[in-house]
Amino acid sequence: MINELENRFSRIGRCAGSSEPVITRLMKDALSKKGLISLAAGFTSNATLPVEKVNKAVAQIAASLSSGDWLQYGMNQGQPALRQEVLTLLRSYSGESGLDLSPDQVIITNGSQQALYLSTQLFCNPGDQVLVEEPSYFVMLELLRGLDIEPVPIPYRPDGRWNIEKLQQLLTAKSAARIKMIYLMGVFANPSTRSISEAEKVTLAEMLQALPHPIPVIEDMAYRDLYFEHPYPAKSMLALEPWQELPVLYAGTFTKPFATGLKTGYAVTRSKPWLDGIARIKGHQDFGTAQFNQAILTEILRSGAYQEHLEFVRPDYQQKMLKLHSSLENLGLRASGWEWDIPDGGLLMWLKGPESVDTRIDSPLWKSAIENGVLYVPGDLCFTGVPPNNYMRLSFGAVSSEEIQEGARRLANAIHCSG
Amino acid sequence: MINELENRFSRIGRCAGSSEPVITRLMKDALSKKGLISLAAGFTSNATLPVEKVNKAVAQIAASLSSGDWLQYGMNQGQPALRQEVLTLLRSYSGESGLDLSPDQVIITNGSQQALYLSTQLFCNPGDQVLVEEPSYFVMLELLRGLDIEPVPIPYRPDGRWNIEKLQQLLTAKSAARIKMIYLMGVFANPSTRSISEAEKVTLAEMLQALPHPIPVIEDMAYRDLYFEHPYPAKSMLALEPWQELPVLYAGTFTKPFATGLKTGYAVTRSKPWLDGIARIKGHQDFGTAQFNQAILTEILRSGAYQEHLEFVRPDYQQKMLKLHSSLENLGLRASGWEWDIPDGGLLMWLKGPESVDTRIDSPLWKSAIENGVLYVPGDLCFTGVPPNNYMRLSFGAVSSEEIQEGARRLANAIHCSG
Repeated sequence: MINELENRFSRIGRCAGSSEPVITRLMKDALSKKGLISLAAGFTSNATLPVEKVNKAVAQIAASLSSGDWLQYGMNQGQPALRQEVLTLLRSYSGESGLDLSPDQVIITNGSQQALYLSTQLFCNPGDQVLVEEPSYFVMLELLRGLDIEPVPIPYRPDGRWNIEKLQQLLTAKSAARIKMIYLMGVFANPSTRSISEAEKVTLAEMLQALPHPIPVIEDMAYRDLYFEHPYPAKSMLALEPWQELPVLYAGTFTKPFATGLKTGYAVTRSKPWLDGIARIKGHQDFGTAQFNQAILTEILRSGAYQEHLEFVRPDYQQKMLKLHSSLENLGLRASGWEWDIPDGGLLMWLKGPESVDTRIDSPLWKSAIENGVLYVPGDLCFTGVPPNNYMRLSFGAVSSEEIQEGARRLANAIHCSG
Repeated sequence: MINELENRFSRIGRCAGSSEPVITRLMKDALSKKGLISLAAGFTSNATLPVEKVNKAVAQIAASLSSGDWLQYGMNQGQPALRQEVLTLLRSYSGESGLDLSPDQVIITNGSQQALYLSTQLFCNPGDQVLVEEPSYFVMLELLRGLDIEPVPIPYRPDGRWNIEKLQQLLTAKSAARIKMIYLMGVFANPSTRSISEAEKVTLAEMLQALPHPIPVIEDMAYRDLYFEHPYPAKSMLALEPWQELPVLYAGTFTKPFATGLKTGYAVTRSKPWLDGIARIKGHQDFGTAQFNQAILTEILRSGAYQEHLEFVRPDYQQKMLKLHSSLENLGLRASGWEWDIPDGGLLMWLKGPESVDTRIDSPLWKSAIENGVLYVPGDLCFTGVPPNNYMRLSFGAVSSEEIQEGARRLANAIHCSG
């Protein structure tokens, strides 16, 4: 009886609970296989994690907040001081100093991931659709499918930009009634490394304004602070005039840019029903992100340690990205028909192989890569519908420069062996 | 358009997202009203929070795990070392040293609350029923209603114990097909302060074994370590022989007994579909509880600081409970027809007023209490169906001995004024 439970699962249980999320498998593989170089998991760099900064912040709050408030429950919506620091951060971006937002319009979440989950629950019933980029963040695609929601891709032009005309048709078609939310990554998208231009954002706002009903839009900005040399120049939707009256939620995080182990993110929106709605569902899931982690991040932001850390890691990530790029090039991948853009930020590189290549899990290439001791994310996981099989996502975040070189060598080996 | 979103909410959005959870309101009230003595929120004591112990643990892990692993992503299911420490803790309970469990059967969650949410998602569709105690943990009742699930009470005898005969009828009736889960608090239940005896647990197991299909049972043990003098003598269901082949999940937490601000709990089950199922949904919600908090708790448990802390707080909570009890008695509440049990552990006291009393939110008594500067949890929130109005839940966890005396005085004032 103890293991006869699967036929007692709910609809969500059957969709989400019956198969292992790919990220779980990839993270487990990356953590458990000795000697394997993982270019798969989107981890940050262990070598540059802010051990000293966090240690110092804890000592600081332990000394100054001796009442122990920081080890107590807090507010479901998050600490007001941290929500204020989030706004200070948002106002620090070029051209956005005037953002007219209050801490009431901010919610602290368990990574930005929770904000995506809560928003999906708030707006989408099983059977509904969510408009996504293509390729898109595969954990979001799994999240949607786990709630029995269908991700529908934005139409693209051959050059990889939105096909505005077809997008317009899609949004105004009768079938658009099933589209309950739009999920976009504003900057250095996972996995494409693309960013959305201001012109595209304005165009989208105009299209949405003309619709008879509002469609909530998430702008996921997880990688915004992880640029290499210059911030991506487009303002956030939150800060753009045509978006002022539209329901848009800015999802941000302190995991990727600072410390993934603190698992603390945030969401900001002017839409009160949206903010209140996800706060209320969060009240049922955990009634508040760990107060301790919030206290640490408040101190880290207030003291300037956050910006200091970013200045320290940016050149490190850039160098690792360049190492991956040059290694792949030197190993002849471009010459054998592989293509990729050099990203301006983030932790990822997105490779397109020749049409004949098959990167899928358990393909000969996949197996050969594992045998050679290197792990990648198969690109098909990032697509909806019938996906192409010739893409792969590589992450240079967690690995050292030496491992990148060796990982690239193993990958090239695998590609040549299985090709 | 920005605020016209409510009619775009999903079914869950309308159930959960359209009204403020009571816990949010109570916590906000408790945190924001100066001078108010809150006997409502189930906070732990600020005065005894383990500030030094946590500070020391952080310094310790910062020194020994210089690789920064503790600030990195971890496994979705939780750190193996912490899962092992959870088992060591479970095996430390009297008569349970032989528990045959492996760390694979443990998952780390954002407080035990998340384990309740995930399990409900896994087994229950909107419209289903969950069997609960009466009164029951009001956040669980809200959680269920937020997912459009109906809490159904266990039938009770006049002495407050389960009515086994009626329970048997309920479980074998045709209508029982809608019951998808059973939620119980094993020890010092919130709010009744009752515990479930071994005999009751065995009887329930026998009833469930005779059913044609398995019904998953959660045993919430949040308060197990917070006994005053002696552990409650019943073994957990996980450890009782008749439960070995039944799907039961033990939900525990390090929040209440150690530090609520770390928001870290755990769940243990022998049922692989249950463990895997909730892990998979968690993979979509946050793909892992903060690694940092897990590293701290691993160190706290391994070093013995957890047990040390418990030995320190137990007499403190007992004294505060006794102060609340004697204050209420000295203020003549028993004489005016109020009744309560003296609990053996936990952070709560459960009061029954005369039939004529109305404790509900916005009742004259409620308003008078706020005016007098004291906050309680109205008991009707802890019931299903048409609730009685003459109960209230008091918490002595967060307040000092002086505040308890003063809070009791204000409460007695309010009761006398509005009576």
